[in-house]
Amino acid sequence: MTNDVSPMTKSGKLFLIPCPLGDDAIETIPAYAVDVLHRLTHLVVERAKTTRHFIKATNPPKPISEYQIEELNEHTPVAELENLLRPALQGHDLGILSEAGCPGVADPGAKLVELAHRRGVEVVPLVGPSSILLALMASGMNGQSFVFQGYLSAKALAEDLKRIEQLAIKHRQTQIFIETPYRNKAVIEQALKVLSPGTRFCIAVDLTTANQMVQTKTIAEWRKNPLELGKRPAIFLIG
Amino acid sequence: MTNDVSPMTKSGKLFLIPCPLGDDAIETIPAYAVDVLHRLTHLVVERAKTTRHFIKATNPPKPISEYQIEELNEHTPVAELENLLRPALQGHDLGILSEAGCPGVADPGAKLVELAHRRGVEVVPLVGPSSILLALMASGMNGQSFVFQGYLSAKALAEDLKRIEQLAIKHRQTQIFIETPYRNKAVIEQALKVLSPGTRFCIAVDLTTANQMVQTKTIAEWRKNPLELGKRPAIFLIG
Repeated sequence: MTNDVSPMTKSGKLFLIPCPLGDDAIETIPAYAVDVLHRLTHLVVERAKTTRHFIKATNPPKPISEYQIEELNEHTPVAELENLLRPALQGHDLGILSEAGCPGVADPGAKLVELAHRRGVEVVPLVGPSSILLALMASGMNGQSFVFQGYLSAKALAEDLKRIEQLAIKHRQTQIFIETPYRNKAVIEQALKVLSPGTRFCIAVDLTTANQMVQTKTIAEWRKNPLELGKRPAIFLIG
Repeated sequence: MTNDVSPMTKSGKLFLIPCPLGDDAIETIPAYAVDVLHRLTHLVVERAKTTRHFIKATNPPKPISEYQIEELNEHTPVAELENLLRPALQGHDLGILSEAGCPGVADPGAKLVELAHRRGVEVVPLVGPSSILLALMASGMNGQSFVFQGYLSAKALAEDLKRIEQLAIKHRQTQIFIETPYRNKAVIEQALKVLSPGTRFCIAVDLTTANQMVQTKTIAEWRKNPLELGKRPAIFLIG
């Protein structure tokens, strides 16, 4: 033991609180995560409107107006992060929520988590829906080794698809990527055009909603029955 | 519409049912997933003993003896998969459970999911705990691009650590890996020895349990205060 003087205030914790992927999928949030949300007062969220809608759907024990909600999105200047973390440094537990799913994965929340580690604030992740993980589970592809590539290049889509197909083959490593829904058609057309007939391609759509669908087929099979996704939110896997 | 004759029997669905990561973390399983488990009769599981223990903890509406539980593990011959899927092909809904966490990711269950796709059985993933995802969320590292590497090479650990550090730097891609708990000490010692002082290293331990701890520091900081993990289950991240 050292003779260090204790800090005057003990830090609060930073809770990573999941929210539903789809509007009607509140049942995918475990009750213990909802309990944390109900207990907290200070929240940092990707989009306040979405979070208020979610809180209302959980039947909260206090009025929404009692929550102190700050936004953290791609426009937030780095200098603002210290202010956002301040409640935790002052001893309050703080929650962070994404627009959909688990915070800290493919959203701006990761920057606040990074700062929390640097400031010695304890970080507590809570279980919830992740479209990346659900798609991987349901794909039947290799989960011992996988990559999440984020978005592929819109300008060099064919090259990017062929590049990750090679990674999938060479390393036996499942390749996961996303696209904005209005580019679903372009992605599927290019994939069916440039990937090898024997390559497995998985399309996971509307995860956790009533319209959920996950299908893995070879490119040759997909070519016989191509899928018209429209603008449904989708995750794609090659493996 | 075509004049195809409908199959005599409509297939059941294959539900991917999560279970807790730690013995006492039943609250991390959403109620809707427990409801599916209670409704089903046919289960394929990585380890029957663990699954029975979990079912008992959920206060099931029927005796455990009414469940028809088959094991699928790393010793199961490929030829056996058809038998395991048969209940679904005969019209029964079928559940698959892993030893811990989400089935289909880094466990033998993925092979049954693969076969389900080939046989036209609908695959339904349910939300639950994943140590990989929880560690990534809580690390504060880049979640826009990440790799799960599985186990690193025990024989060439130093080389493997340096190789994935280079991938992390070159592609700004978070590198996630696991180890068996009895090798925690070797992994941490090697990481602190061979990685660059400025590289960020995250250690996530005992996720979802009361002893949960996630810490991200630079290698230089870890060297000042190395962590003695003992044999606690851990996930490691470089990014």
